[in-house]
Amino acid sequence: MEKFVEQGYLYDFYGELLTERQQQVYESVVLEDYSLSEVAEDLGISRQGVHDMIKRCNKTLEEYEQKLHLVEKFLNIRAQVKQIRVLAREYHSDEIVNISNEILEEL
Amino acid sequence: MEKFVEQGYLYDFYGELLTERQQQVYESVVLEDYSLSEVAEDLGISRQGVHDMIKRCNKTLEEYEQKLHLVEKFLNIRAQVKQIRVLAREYHSDEIVNISNEILEEL
Repeated sequence: MEKFVEQGYLYDFYGELLTERQQQVYESVVLEDYSLSEVAEDLGISRQGVHDMIKRCNKTLEEYEQKLHLVEKFLNIRAQVKQIRVLAREYHSDEIVNISNEILEEL
Repeated sequence: MEKFVEQGYLYDFYGELLTERQQQVYESVVLEDYSLSEVAEDLGISRQGVHDMIKRCNKTLEEYEQKLHLVEKFLNIRAQVKQIRVLAREYHSDEIVNISNEILEEL
């Protein structure tokens, strides 16, 4: 998986376990694509400080995934539900397509 | 949901975030149904000590769920996949039934 996509999933699943300040910095840099310098200026810390915070966040998020494997589990289910959707379209089963879509929105 | 079932799910999802000793005690008491006194004797601590550890574990597991809501999410998906399986049986779509079963085994 692309690094950026993977980071997004890890943050989706485990982001709430970071501190509020870490969440704020992580969202600005990784999700909203502000530069390290911009965020550093906003927070009144060094560019290197922001860089270190992001690195620490990634490490924390990866450690949670290594223990819980929930992103992996949910991505597997996502792939299987997509398979179901393909088959359901072949069978013209709108009900199954609809439920599949609902699941995929949640995942 | 029954308390026992709920505890099992919480432990399935977040148990790895407890310490090794907590996991050991939790599994003995909650999952394997040993008595507090038996576990206390094994570990050489008081019955009250075991009781407090279990209480603390439950609190920790519940806090993770309050932050991440992954058990809730997973139970929703499980219910939806079961719905898909019912419909797929009506459509005689063995392929969809099979994938549904695979997903339910993972969940």
